[in-house]
Amino acid sequence: MSWGVFDSGVGGLTVVRALREALPGVRLAYLGDTARVPYGIRSVETVRRYAAEAARFFARDGVRGLIVACNTASAVALDVFEEVFPGKVLGVVEPGVEEAVAATRGGPIGVIGTPATIRSDAYGTRIRERLPGVGVISVACPLFVPLAEEGWTRGEVPRLVAEHYLAPMIEARIDTLVLGCTHYPLLKPVLREVLGEGVRLVDSAEAVARAAARLGIGAGETGGGERFSVTDAGGSFREVAARFLGREIPVLETVHLGPAA
Amino acid sequence: MSWGVFDSGVGGLTVVRALREALPGVRLAYLGDTARVPYGIRSVETVRRYAAEAARFFARDGVRGLIVACNTASAVALDVFEEVFPGKVLGVVEPGVEEAVAATRGGPIGVIGTPATIRSDAYGTRIRERLPGVGVISVACPLFVPLAEEGWTRGEVPRLVAEHYLAPMIEARIDTLVLGCTHYPLLKPVLREVLGEGVRLVDSAEAVARAAARLGIGAGETGGGERFSVTDAGGSFREVAARFLGREIPVLETVHLGPAA
Repeated sequence: MSWGVFDSGVGGLTVVRALREALPGVRLAYLGDTARVPYGIRSVETVRRYAAEAARFFARDGVRGLIVACNTASAVALDVFEEVFPGKVLGVVEPGVEEAVAATRGGPIGVIGTPATIRSDAYGTRIRERLPGVGVISVACPLFVPLAEEGWTRGEVPRLVAEHYLAPMIEARIDTLVLGCTHYPLLKPVLREVLGEGVRLVDSAEAVARAAARLGIGAGETGGGERFSVTDAGGSFREVAARFLGREIPVLETVHLGPAA
Repeated sequence: MSWGVFDSGVGGLTVVRALREALPGVRLAYLGDTARVPYGIRSVETVRRYAAEAARFFARDGVRGLIVACNTASAVALDVFEEVFPGKVLGVVEPGVEEAVAATRGGPIGVIGTPATIRSDAYGTRIRERLPGVGVISVACPLFVPLAEEGWTRGEVPRLVAEHYLAPMIEARIDTLVLGCTHYPLLKPVLREVLGEGVRLVDSAEAVARAAARLGIGAGETGGGERFSVTDAGGSFREVAARFLGREIPVLETVHLGPAA
């Protein structure tokens, strides 16, 4: 039996990559809802409806539990997955918060994410619960997803876009930045360039992989192995996926999600 | 009875705006599939599936015919709408081709659109049918949609993005550029700046409105009036919609599309 990894699209493959390094033995079943990506521009109601459909898919598929790689779904719909897999769901927000709280030297802490993640204030709320009084500055960065998906991660355009979004964080002199979207690790070099070396970057993909290892997910498993499913395999999916996963996807299955599925 | 206007999201509101000017008396029923936007990054199969669901919605709604404002759906799924409304479907591609063919002084003609529209070569094929021997240069511009939706249409970033995408067109010295996506009219000033005054811009939103007037759609109607439906009304929909429509949307209905709907 495998652990499911859910994402709205290809971004979660950065989580698969990190999980593979942290837990080489665990068996993984990836599902990316590429026919309805991106979730980050949608309402809470729509994301929760899509999450419920994905949870039912994984239940039928017989996975042991779920790693929700999508920040937006983790921020606004983790309880939807919990209903189907009680006590067996790990989202990316909590591990990201953990690492941000450990990394900061007094703040303020910056959080970047999709519009839906930032509107939910899922990171900000949890960070302030742990560190009352710490400053949190949250900014939605909608251009980062298409830039990362296009592979346009170097040069003047991504640098100017990053400068635009991060201006209030530089002004406030943040000491830690949470990358609250699985697409953002691809932009680390430009974020580093714009913020300088003094700011710690918390990568939610790596954070969730470390949390999975701490929780003993897949402990004792040695076989490894992966299955990849998407709801739309068209377009430049394989090319973009290889950029996120760091290698080619061997076999790709197309499945349908929906109210009737 | 009204005419339906279909789009994958808010971009089609530029078509409503143009239709309203060309045909003040016609009654319009707008549907934007905002829960699954954007279509331009998806496969042909997925876009056709979504188009069939939208066509069924309009059939139940009892509209007289359809204006397909979405370039991607017009390019790869017009026949899907035609099956439900035979002889009563007007897409944006044909009117855009018409105007490009009339505007060019020998070419080459540039076409910009979403990845799906450009992959389909719907514009290129039809332009070459009309003007064999004319050069057509097509470029997908995935960053233009998020820039337009964010309202980030002026300044260095949109200019550099436009310079990047349009470089092969400037090199080839196009005399006409087809804006093959309903989001792009918002970027006209920056396109104009990058291309110079010599290049004619064909706006598919205005082209389809003129074609609708020529075809006598809504002729004799005087009442006007509009209804607006979307599949996801959350997030910053109203704010973004006002940018595209040029005014506030009065009443907004949320509907569900899907295989079971």
